Amino acid sequence: MTKTAGDSTVTRRQLLGGLTATAAATLAAGAAAVPRSEVKSWDMRTAVLVIGSGAAGVSAAIEARRAGAHVLLIESLPRFGGSSAMSGGVVYAGGGTALQKALKVEDSPEQMYRFLTLAGALHPPLDKIQLYCEGSAEHFDWLVEQGIPYTDKLTLAKGLPMGDASLYFSGTELAWPARDLAVPAPRGHVPGVPGMNGGRRLMEALLSQADALGVKMHAQVDAHRLVTESDGRIVGVIATVDGEQRAIAVQRGVVLACGGFIHNRDMLRAYAPHLYECSVPWGNAADLGAGINMGIAVGAAALRMNEGFAIAPIYPPESVLSGIIVNTSGQRFISEESYHGVLGDAIAYHQRGRAWLITDRDSSYAFHQDNFLPVAKASTIGDIAAQLEFPKGALQQTVAYYNLHAANGEDPMFRKSQTYLRPLQGPPYTAWDLSTSQAFFPAHTFGGLHTTSDGQVLSSFGEEIPGLYAAGRNTAGIPTAPYIASGISVGDCTFFGRRAGRAAAAQRRVAG
Amino acid sequence: MTKTAGDSTVTRRQLLGGLTATAAATLAAGAAAVPRSEVKSWDMRTAVLVIGSGAAGVSAAIEARRAGAHVLLIESLPRFGGSSAMSGGVVYAGGGTALQKALKVEDSPEQMYRFLTLAGALHPPLDKIQLYCEGSAEHFDWLVEQGIPYTDKLTLAKGLPMGDASLYFSGTELAWPARDLAVPAPRGHVPGVPGMNGGRRLMEALLSQADALGVKMHAQVDAHRLVTESDGRIVGVIATVDGEQRAIAVQRGVVLACGGFIHNRDMLRAYAPHLYECSVPWGNAADLGAGINMGIAVGAAALRMNEGFAIAPIYPPESVLSGIIVNTSGQRFISEESYHGVLGDAIAYHQRGRAWLITDRDSSYAFHQDNFLPVAKASTIGDIAAQLEFPKGALQQTVAYYNLHAANGEDPMFRKSQTYLRPLQGPPYTAWDLSTSQAFFPAHTFGGLHTTSDGQVLSSFGEEIPGLYAAGRNTAGIPTAPYIASGISVGDCTFFGRRAGRAAAAQRRVAG
Repeated sequence: MTKTAGDSTVTRRQLLGGLTATAAATLAAGAAAVPRSEVKSWDMRTAVLVIGSGAAGVSAAIEARRAGAHVLLIESLPRFGGSSAMSGGVVYAGGGTALQKALKVEDSPEQMYRFLTLAGALHPPLDKIQLYCEGSAEHFDWLVEQGIPYTDKLTLAKGLPMGDASLYFSGTELAWPARDLAVPAPRGHVPGVPGMNGGRRLMEALLSQADALGVKMHAQVDAHRLVTESDGRIVGVIATVDGEQRAIAVQRGVVLACGGFIHNRDMLRAYAPHLYECSVPWGNAADLGAGINMGIAVGAAALRMNEGFAIAPIYPPESVLSGIIVNTSGQRFISEESYHGVLGDAIAYHQRGRAWLITDRDSSYAFHQDNFLPVAKASTIGDIAAQLEFPKGALQQTVAYYNLHAANGEDPMFRKSQTYLRPLQGPPYTAWDLSTSQAFFPAHTFGGLHTTSDGQVLSSFGEEIPGLYAAGRNTAGIPTAPYIASGISVGDCTFFGRRAGRAAAAQRRVAG
Repeated sequence: MTKTAGDSTVTRRQLLGGLTATAAATLAAGAAAVPRSEVKSWDMRTAVLVIGSGAAGVSAAIEARRAGAHVLLIESLPRFGGSSAMSGGVVYAGGGTALQKALKVEDSPEQMYRFLTLAGALHPPLDKIQLYCEGSAEHFDWLVEQGIPYTDKLTLAKGLPMGDASLYFSGTELAWPARDLAVPAPRGHVPGVPGMNGGRRLMEALLSQADALGVKMHAQVDAHRLVTESDGRIVGVIATVDGEQRAIAVQRGVVLACGGFIHNRDMLRAYAPHLYECSVPWGNAADLGAGINMGIAVGAAALRMNEGFAIAPIYPPESVLSGIIVNTSGQRFISEESYHGVLGDAIAYHQRGRAWLITDRDSSYAFHQDNFLPVAKASTIGDIAAQLEFPKGALQQTVAYYNLHAANGEDPMFRKSQTYLRPLQGPPYTAWDLSTSQAFFPAHTFGGLHTTSDGQVLSSFGEEIPGLYAAGRNTAGIPTAPYIASGISVGDCTFFGRRAGRAAAAQRRVAG
């Protein structure tokens, strides 16, 4: 039987079989990190312990196991798969992957690198991005080897393919200014299954592989403290199983891979106030920041803790992109065709969380649209402006300017593609509320532990914390704000998860 | 002889007198934190150790000493005073201070609280702000008691008083939208000395007090690692003196108060990429993040590490505020009279670091202005727009809209005050480059350790790290981005520095 996402047939009873339940029970629950000297005995031992069963953790487990290490993977929830299983399952890959080549798509690591370093955040992690681009074609082969099903089909439609296409433009490559910064190429590689099932399918394949390789996987085991040797080395973990504290000795390395903190409201308010405002915390229920906090507790630095994926999913349908998006001053501020993460970032971080999409007769959402509320409807732009209390005349001026140039096929401000560019036509005009708190505005976090490109966790002084590794949203990886394409996060999880697993397995053995 | 800012007559020789130089010499230089077991012997002992001699550190030292503790204060540079001595010396105080009352200025803690919580960052630290507002009048009395000279003079001119006035509107209180959120009041309390000497004068007074009280102060002692007991308690510090490592035992508490990290370029790029872009790192040379890193190394959480004071000092002269400020789309985005920190934040964080001030014949800077380069000069707005390559017609439209309404005394978009509002008049028009990298654009950091309002440093799990306190820019305090008024930072340093000093001194004694 192969292991599938959600499968937890290996029970807690098996994990605890024959062990006494008293070993770690006297540890202070409040201790930020637990000194080795306070652990009376270990309940179990492993060479590599992976915490978290999403794409990062399972990729790490697979590679650590392939390197010959005994690997234990634990998951706090009853089901495996993490937030990755909830995602679209897109991996951002390029530079000439097998699938790109099969579909005669031209791409190069250089153009992929240009896109990832120039179109998004200030000062992104160049070392990680370079490795990611150079290793991307090989990484896609690896994904195929794990049994993830891809089809030789490309779609040019915007948004996650609802059919069985496996390659598409998953980001903001074709929108201005990105298209002037790097040659656009479709780099979203997604399992060839309909709709939002890509993540589930991707995790089923990875979990099945891990199981076949002999990775020990246990659900409902909640790690909450690292155990430190007096020299700072991480030698174990304290976890809760059925309300009892258990001590797990780790000989080579712990890999923290248990996700971001979008469901930890206190952390969110303190670290990422803009994401706190977004209406839909988007992630698995275990995205509580535990791994990040365990790392910080032993002296790790955490970077980009304010950043995240703030999502304004205005398309599909693409027809609405012929409308315009305006801020509280009635001004346009972005090309409407920008990727959801780029638009979401602009609204959440830079427009005080407020914006509206103004559509006309031909660009309006269908009646059943329910991501965004129609908050004004009128037969003139002036009436829309009055209902929304925009500064007088401002929206009218914006529309006049836009229409004037659109009639000539131009968008001087934000260079919207010809595909979507035309003057706003006749009424009714509708204003759809795109504000972070009122719209369907999902978000998750990108901040996490500072790591090397091999997943080694670094202290505030840039020194390695021996025995501690991290991957995925436990780390500050290549997803940064603005998030410029679907698949960068799961891509980062799998790519750097593999590296972290290999590095942890390669650690010299340490007496437990 | 009283101790003044810059005085370091207590030499390193005195600090080291009679001590062996070998005690800590074998410690691993790279250790993130040093276990107590590795310290062979202590070179010296104190009840409270304060690291840093700026407003936060010296305020802490004064109060710890007044509480009866032996206090040692160390400073890494040859001179005392920290970045506070370089500052304007403004303390943001209100709610009815003695000076406000003497000048018949009406204010209340409630209006001050409204301003500080509503006009700036999302989700500011409400608990600290409430204490700060409620205790502000008492705190001002304390500053007076320390010998800081204030005059009974108010000025309504914008910007740090160049004369001897001691009370002024130091922030964005009168600009929209702040003035609609709280009743404006002048709350900038500054020593009654001309120009930029306020910080130096403030620190002279505080240092003199500390000296008179018997605080031991030593310059050129560079603390770099905390010493932890096996239970996590902080029991000492390793510092470098003349190239030798020294171990200082601390019985009650260490107060980290050695500033932000604007001069640590690696930290800045990793944590605060927007501030990395600003042309002038503004702070004392020791603002290298050492205190923050020492705290992180022992498990402290650090908050708001991306935030800071990004400064666009366009006034004085106030006459330029009759010009308009536009972004790369040729759009206005803010009321031009906004406080330097509010404008700087808008440009650095929300306009991709680029903006221009467009002045006309009557609003232009004088010839000798050199903070901002005139990058376009023309007899028509269209020529300015062409030279700056704005989207065609955009700047012209912005000016037409602005002039139309300004002629009626209105600014529908950003509600500029009547004082500065008038249509742009005749040529020559000049565009001044306000971009973060090209303009005189100072910046410093606000991110720091997570602390209680008593300065107790908190771990990532919200637990107190015993024996560790912090204040000023070593902490995430009440200065957040956008920074809405001068004096909030030095106000926070002195107010919460005092609390941290008292709390450290009140710790039960611990065997060293």
